[in-house]
Amino acid sequence: MVEIIEGGVTTPQGFKAAGVHSGVKYRALDLGMLYSEVPATAFVGYTSNAVKSAPVQVMMRENSQKLSAVVINSGNANALTGRRGIEDAMAMKQAAAAELNLDPREVGVMSTGLIGRFMDMHKVRYGISRAAKELDEGREADGLLAEAIMTTDTLKKECAVRVRLKDGTLVYIGAISKGSGMIAPHLKVLHGTTLSLVTTDAALSPRFKGAWQEILDDTMNMVSVDGDQSTNDTCIMLANGKARGGFADDDPAFREALEMVMAKIAKMIAIDGEGATKLIEVQVTGAETKEDARLAAKKIINSPLVKSAIFGSDPNYGRIMMALGNSGCRFNLEDVHLTIKGGDMEVPILDSGAPVFQEERAVEVVRMAMDNKEVVIAVDLGIGSESATGWGCDLTYDYVRINAEYAS
Amino acid sequence: MVEIIEGGVTTPQGFKAAGVHSGVKYRALDLGMLYSEVPATAFVGYTSNAVKSAPVQVMMRENSQKLSAVVINSGNANALTGRRGIEDAMAMKQAAAAELNLDPREVGVMSTGLIGRFMDMHKVRYGISRAAKELDEGREADGLLAEAIMTTDTLKKECAVRVRLKDGTLVYIGAISKGSGMIAPHLKVLHGTTLSLVTTDAALSPRFKGAWQEILDDTMNMVSVDGDQSTNDTCIMLANGKARGGFADDDPAFREALEMVMAKIAKMIAIDGEGATKLIEVQVTGAETKEDARLAAKKIINSPLVKSAIFGSDPNYGRIMMALGNSGCRFNLEDVHLTIKGGDMEVPILDSGAPVFQEERAVEVVRMAMDNKEVVIAVDLGIGSESATGWGCDLTYDYVRINAEYAS
Repeated sequence: MVEIIEGGVTTPQGFKAAGVHSGVKYRALDLGMLYSEVPATAFVGYTSNAVKSAPVQVMMRENSQKLSAVVINSGNANALTGRRGIEDAMAMKQAAAAELNLDPREVGVMSTGLIGRFMDMHKVRYGISRAAKELDEGREADGLLAEAIMTTDTLKKECAVRVRLKDGTLVYIGAISKGSGMIAPHLKVLHGTTLSLVTTDAALSPRFKGAWQEILDDTMNMVSVDGDQSTNDTCIMLANGKARGGFADDDPAFREALEMVMAKIAKMIAIDGEGATKLIEVQVTGAETKEDARLAAKKIINSPLVKSAIFGSDPNYGRIMMALGNSGCRFNLEDVHLTIKGGDMEVPILDSGAPVFQEERAVEVVRMAMDNKEVVIAVDLGIGSESATGWGCDLTYDYVRINAEYAS
Repeated sequence: MVEIIEGGVTTPQGFKAAGVHSGVKYRALDLGMLYSEVPATAFVGYTSNAVKSAPVQVMMRENSQKLSAVVINSGNANALTGRRGIEDAMAMKQAAAAELNLDPREVGVMSTGLIGRFMDMHKVRYGISRAAKELDEGREADGLLAEAIMTTDTLKKECAVRVRLKDGTLVYIGAISKGSGMIAPHLKVLHGTTLSLVTTDAALSPRFKGAWQEILDDTMNMVSVDGDQSTNDTCIMLANGKARGGFADDDPAFREALEMVMAKIAKMIAIDGEGATKLIEVQVTGAETKEDARLAAKKIINSPLVKSAIFGSDPNYGRIMMALGNSGCRFNLEDVHLTIKGGDMEVPILDSGAPVFQEERAVEVVRMAMDNKEVVIAVDLGIGSESATGWGCDLTYDYVRINAEYAS
C-alpha cells in the first residue's frame, strides 16, 4: 500500500537540502543543493539531445555510481559554452565537494536557464558556500531547493510517498522537479529534459538500472509541453539505504511507489507547461506494441493543432486523428475508437473509425467536455493489448508571449 | 533562361479554370475546377499521413496516368467520413465527368476544410455543374480557382514562368496552391498536405516521375507551418503537351523552371502560415548527407521555441542549437557555424561551436537582424557538402487564436 504524504526531497531519512540567492538571477533563488549523509547509489537519466550542456557532459563522463550531493543552479544553462563551460561545471563540483568534505566525484551537477552565456563563477561559488552552510531537513528546506531550481515554472513541483516493503521496512520516496518550456524529455540512462531529483531511504543495487529506465520511459519521457527537448535534462535518484532494509530492487511495492512519484511529478510538469491553462492526458490502448502506443500518445500530445483546439475548447477532433495518422503507430482506421473525457463527461467521438455524430448540437457536447481543466483523449486502437499514457498541456497566447520575450 | 511572368494555371496553353460558390461555405467561393482541352500526363503526390481523406484514397486507388480535369472543394475535407465519404468523392468525379463529357477516371478530386463531416452533395453537385459552365482561361479564371480552394489562407498563391527548351519550344508552367495551417507536407509520389495544382503545356512522359519526387522533396516537402501533416495533402501536375515540343523530361531548363515554380509556391505557403508575421528560411549546408541536411532544416523550422523567439525577435539562439541537437542529423558541435540574417544584416553567432559574443550590446545586434519580415537561419555543419533549405513561419498569438476557434 503506497501512501501519498505531504513531503519533499528531505522526507526520506538522511537527506538535507538548501536553496539560496547567489546573484545569477536578479532576485529569485537560483542555487540549490541536495546532500545525503551517507553515499547514495545514484541512478541518472540524461537528455538525448546531441547538443548537451557542460554539466551533462561532465556527469556522463564521470558516470559516478555513488553520489553524496548534487549542486544545481538556475538562470544559466551552461550550454553552448565550450571548454570554459566544462571547466565551470567541474569547478561547481569541486567547490561543493570542498564545502562538504567530499570527493568531487561524489557531487552531481545540474544547470538550467539561458543557453550560450558563460557562468558568473564568482556568484556561483558564493552561492555554493552559502547553500552548504544552510543545508537542513524539513518542509522549509524542501521548498527552498524546489524554488531555487525554477525558471519559468509557476508552481513548485514536489511530492512524497511512504510504502512498506515485503521485508517490513518502511521506506520513503521524495521528489522535486522543474520544467515548464523546452520540455519533451527523452531521458536515457547513461546516454534527460527537466531537472528532477528523487530521494529515497530504501536500499537499491545498481541492478535496478533497468527498472529505472522503464519507469522513466513510462513517466518523465511521456511528458511534452512543446516537443522541444532540452540540452540540459537530467533526472537523478539517490537511494541512501538509511531505512535499513534489504535491497528493494525487486519489491513490487517499491516499484509501484516510485512509479507513482514519477508519474506525479511528470503530471505536475505538464500542468505547469508554459502558458498552460489545461492538462491534457492522452491514453492510448489496444496497441500492438508498447512502442506504438508511446509513439501515438506523444504525437497527439505534441500536435500544435490539437493543443490549440483544446485551449479554445474547439471540438475539432479530426486533428487528433490527423496526429495519430502521422505518428508512425500501426492501426487500422476501422478499428479505432476515440473518446474525449472532461469533468464528469465522457463523449464517444469515433466508433470503429466512423464519426458517432454529425449534428451541431452533438458537437456542443464535445465542446463542453473540452471545457475542463483536465481533458482526457482516449484512443483505443483495437488491435492489441499494449497501452501508454502521455501528459501535455494546451497551446495558448501565453506560451507565445513567454517564449517571444524570454531572453529580454 | 527561366522568366517569371504574371500568370496562373491557365497561362500554359489548353487549360481552363473556374471557381464558384456552391454553398458548402457560407459566402466564400468553395468549389473549383481545372480543365485541360486534351488529356494530360498526370504527376501526383499524396499525404503520407496514415489517415487519408476519401478523395486521396480514391485517387490513389485509381492511380490514373492521364487526367483531363480536377474538381476541388473547400469547406469540408471529406476525411474521417468512412464508406459514405468514398462514395461522395466518387460522385464528385462522376458529376464532373458527366458535365465535361469525360470518363470519371480522367477526373481528379481534392477536398480541404473541416474533418469528420459528411459532404452536402446537393450543394457540391450544384457547384460542379456551375463550375463546368464557367470554365475559362485568363487571369480572372486563374484567380477564381485560386480563391475557391482557400481555407484559412489570407493570400492567393499563384505564379507562372516561361522557359525555352533545348529544342526551341517555348513552354509555360503555372501553379496555384492553398495551405496555411496543418502544414508539414511529406508528399510521396503514389503513396501529400497542401492542395497544389501545377499546369504546363510542355510534354512529359511518365518517366519524369522520379524527377517529380525529387523536386517535391526539395520544395513542397520542405515547408512547415506547424509540423502537423494533413490527411488531405495533394499536389497534382498536369502536362498537356500543347506547346508541341518533344518530351521535356531531361531538359535542364524545364527542370530549373519547374523547381523555381514549386519553390515559389512553397515559400508562399510559408509566408501565409496561420498567424505568421515573418518568413523563416533555414539553410543547412556542410551536411554529410542530403537526408541529414533535410532533417536538420525541418527540425529547426518546426521548433515552437525557435518560432516564438523569432516572432518576438528574441535573440535566444540556443534554441536553434537545441533543435539541431534533436534532429538526428550527424554533426560535431565544434564544427558548427551559425549565422542569422535579416534585412541587410548578417550576424555570426557560433564559430566552430563556440559563441562569437557575450555582451548585451552584441545580443542587440541579433535582435535587430531578427526584426525583419524575412529571417534566415544559416547553419553550416562543416563536415560534408550536402545542403537543404526549409521554409516556415513564426509562432504567433494569431496562430493560437485561429486554431482555438476554427470549427466554431
